Amino acid sequence: MSTPPHTTAGPAAVTVLGLGRMGSALAAAFLAAGHSTTVWNRTPGKADELAARGARRAGSVAEAVAAAPLVVVCVADDEAVHQLLDPLDGALAGRTLVNLTTGTSAQARANAAWAKERGIAFLDGAIMAVPEDIATGDAVLLYSGPRDAFDTYEEALRVLAPAGTTHLGGDAGLAALHDLALLGIMWGVLNGFLHGAALLGTAGVRAGDFAPLAARMTTVVAGYVTAAAPEVDAGSYPAGDATLTVHQEAMRHLAEESEALGVNAELPRFLQLLAGRAVAEGHAESGYSALVEQFRKA
Amino acid sequence: MSTPPHTTAGPAAVTVLGLGRMGSALAAAFLAAGHSTTVWNRTPGKADELAARGARRAGSVAEAVAAAPLVVVCVADDEAVHQLLDPLDGALAGRTLVNLTTGTSAQARANAAWAKERGIAFLDGAIMAVPEDIATGDAVLLYSGPRDAFDTYEEALRVLAPAGTTHLGGDAGLAALHDLALLGIMWGVLNGFLHGAALLGTAGVRAGDFAPLAARMTTVVAGYVTAAAPEVDAGSYPAGDATLTVHQEAMRHLAEESEALGVNAELPRFLQLLAGRAVAEGHAESGYSALVEQFRKA
Ligand SMILES: NC(=O)c1ccc[n+]([C@@H]2O[C@H](COP(=O)([O-])OP(=O)(O)OC[C@H]3O[C@@H](n4cnc5c(N)ncnc54)[C@H](OP(=O)(O)O)[C@@H]3O)[C@@H](O)[C@H]2O)c1
Ligand SMILES: NC(=O)c1ccc[n+]([C@@H]2O[C@H](COP(=O)([O-])OP(=O)(O)OC[C@H]3O[C@@H](n4cnc5c(N)ncnc54)[C@H](OP(=O)(O)O)[C@@H]3O)[C@@H](O)[C@H]2O)c1
Repeated sequence: MSTPPHTTAGPAAVTVLGLGRMGSALAAAFLAAGHSTTVWNRTPGKADELAARGARRAGSVAEAVAAAPLVVVCVADDEAVHQLLDPLDGALAGRTLVNLTTGTSAQARANAAWAKERGIAFLDGAIMAVPEDIATGDAVLLYSGPRDAFDTYEEALRVLAPAGTTHLGGDAGLAALHDLALLGIMWGVLNGFLHGAALLGTAGVRAGDFAPLAARMTTVVAGYVTAAAPEVDAGSYPAGDATLTVHQEAMRHLAEESEALGVNAELPRFLQLLAGRAVAEGHAESGYSALVEQFRKA
Repeated sequence: MSTPPHTTAGPAAVTVLGLGRMGSALAAAFLAAGHSTTVWNRTPGKADELAARGARRAGSVAEAVAAAPLVVVCVADDEAVHQLLDPLDGALAGRTLVNLTTGTSAQARANAAWAKERGIAFLDGAIMAVPEDIATGDAVLLYSGPRDAFDTYEEALRVLAPAGTTHLGGDAGLAALHDLALLGIMWGVLNGFLHGAALLGTAGVRAGDFAPLAARMTTVVAGYVTAAAPEVDAGSYPAGDATLTVHQEAMRHLAEESEALGVNAELPRFLQLLAGRAVAEGHAESGYSALVEQFRKA
């Protein structure tokens, strides 16, 4: 079974499976960019608004898949992906399946193998954006899997992230790995901010007053990341700015401050533990990047 | 005992106690801006380079303090501050002491009381910058304590952070609290990046290739902080973008991925624990900011 290859005559027809917060934003973006867009969601009501704006509503997953050579799936998790797609039996053959459901690299690689057996061109993708940033310059969407599948539909995929559509490589697991690594940074910032807001709240400082400094700090630290990368790659961690001992001392302050003010101290205590391990391995005078060796250990 | 008040005739004379990585950068900045700068360090050799560039080298802390109405101290920790200043006995009276040593809010408030008893105008400060950013547009230095002391020396202090010199309020503890809160964000970013680099390293991805995406993500997340602040202040956490359940699922992926790839999983396991507690309290459908309530708990 095969479908006519997508030609450059006009925007590719697209099917979106899953219309949660994110799937709805994806479908809306394709629609707004003039793609013939077919949608399906387990709870059909979520297609109403999109249908009103011109989306074609499919009565079943099979019908949705048959409607376009490019099928995007974005549901809660990998289990849901398989509940949707496993029963299709051949309907996806010859099409390109782009899975934007968050998952692990192992799941992505298993899905790539599953797709290959069935003659499906498979890209795993990761959405580094909130729904409202889809189709804006702030959206970053990462893809991994066969380069030719990406090239064929790059134009359509750029609708979702005009300035941030990136193919990471042929290993289907790369998007998930990057996704999780980047989410780790996001949670790191948010937890730091929320913990800080809890601390400052004890002195009557509002989160709204802390936020401009916090946002500025976050932006400044983006530069530290750039500086840390070559140290990580070289396995050499000069204390250009501050030694791990200085960091350790400040972490102890954060922990003690948190305890003294009745705020959660688990996060700073964990930071101390990690730094302490690195110091015990001889990194007292190294820079912060030396901690990568601790993160590499199971 | 009193010293002549600083007049606007020229840059104020400044004394810097402590010439570690940071103290040296502070003294160098004052010197470069034309301030008569007196320096002292426990290990005298660290003053050589500054002396060669025109700094006055004091033979003792008392001599250093006597040389200027504005005394900046930046040593390893609060204990070191007291080892330096406690023996001075009156020499600081009538002067302004700016403590840029990292510490807790409790230490800052105790130092403010100590200074008040001795007739010293005291500002506690926090340096949100690495030494090489001192005197550049990237430096942020936060101060708390009497507003008039800040106003008197604001011009001199602006030398250190031309675009980021901020007085937070009269409570001397505020700078330390902000400092620790902001450092928490910094460690959050760096740990997320290093953990991510460890994860990606298992697939042969270099930290240098991950860094541009990581830096971009960090900058994007600075905007999420701004969005989260009013939710924290209002105690209402709409899941505008993603629910805690969606975050929880992705945290589980990060933990499983880390374990599967033999990388440290403590950080994601802690994230899961925290999100799990919030979900257990009814926040499954809330947004991420709901976690502030967990951070508020001892
Ligand atoms: N929201 C974000 O900010 C964001 C950002 C990046 C990535 N993502 C990822 O995008 C994916 C979707 O997230 P979301 O925010 O859109 O979540 P959501 O609003 O909770 O929507 C979940 C979607 O999955 C569907 N679903 C769940 N189980 C299913 C099953 N067994 N069979 C068929 N459909 C099923 C739901 O259908 P019903 O409507 O019938 O329940 C709904 O369409 C997740 O993997 C998430 O990690 C989200
Ligand atoms: N480096 C950064 O990126 C950074 C950023 C923000 C804030 N800070 C803060 O700045 C302060 C100094 O940090 P740093 O990076 O400059 O540290 P550093 O390079 O390790 O220098 C430590 C300084 O403290 C002095 N010292 C330590 N114990 C002393 C004692 N008992 N009596 C007298 N002097 C003593 C040292 O004197 P000797 O030379 O004789 O040992 C040295 O001048 C810390 O509180 C740190 O948290 C640093």
